[in-house]
Amino acid sequence: MTKQVYFQDVAVGGELPSLMKQPTSRQLVMWAGASGDLNPIHYDKDYAIKRGLPGVIVHGQLAGCFLGQLITDWAGDGGNLKKLTLSYKGMNFPGEALTCRGVVTRKYVEDDRHFVVCNIWVENPRGEKTVTGTATVTLPAGD
Amino acid sequence: MTKQVYFQDVAVGGELPSLMKQPTSRQLVMWAGASGDLNPIHYDKDYAIKRGLPGVIVHGQLAGCFLGQLITDWAGDGGNLKKLTLSYKGMNFPGEALTCRGVVTRKYVEDDRHFVVCNIWVENPRGEKTVTGTATVTLPAGD
Repeated sequence: MTKQVYFQDVAVGGELPSLMKQPTSRQLVMWAGASGDLNPIHYDKDYAIKRGLPGVIVHGQLAGCFLGQLITDWAGDGGNLKKLTLSYKGMNFPGEALTCRGVVTRKYVEDDRHFVVCNIWVENPRGEKTVTGTATVTLPAGD
Repeated sequence: MTKQVYFQDVAVGGELPSLMKQPTSRQLVMWAGASGDLNPIHYDKDYAIKRGLPGVIVHGQLAGCFLGQLITDWAGDGGNLKKLTLSYKGMNFPGEALTCRGVVTRKYVEDDRHFVVCNIWVENPRGEKTVTGTATVTLPAGD
């Protein structure tokens, strides 16, 4: 368990703790089976190259789910993810280290609930944002 | 439904109807997920080549199960597979057509049950037997 983050301690402009992920071909195969997305571009190198890709690519939704983990890890047991919006901007490749990052863009209170909005993104080793999005969470208010 | 085969109609030396299978990379990924055998030699071409293989190879047990299908398709609803023994002799590759074949080697009656023993094998496009085995089934006696 990490320490719970509270609404009162969050500042607009503040960064979320980053999350490193390194999806493997094995994780892609497990994702294919679990999600039912069996498109061979995610595991068959020859097929992917024939389709004009540089090689096997990571399922976009898997990379998107890394952002889901970033935000729910941060919000903790006391927080709740209320909304997650994702845009797919580029390809990710198995074996490459991905860094999931986020920054707080807005705080507000509505109906006694404490909302925090974050910009979130996946960054590849070349610093390119391959998935971007926004997340809205509620956090406990604090003391 | 195919026509039921009866014990009285089976002769030692007789061939079973052959079964053609052409496993794809997709079927291997589905098998990996369903069986839990996530060894990357079955889907990651670069990994397989690093391990000294010519490329991705078919799970041996998947090829073996094709022989299970051969024999249960043949024995039909009225027959029962009692014993299946398999030996793995060579590699199969996704995309290659495999022919499953069988020949009856023995017939006998025991405790009023009608047993048929078959030699069965998987043949690759070069005529090599990559999986071999024996199967024992019971069949309905016939009229």
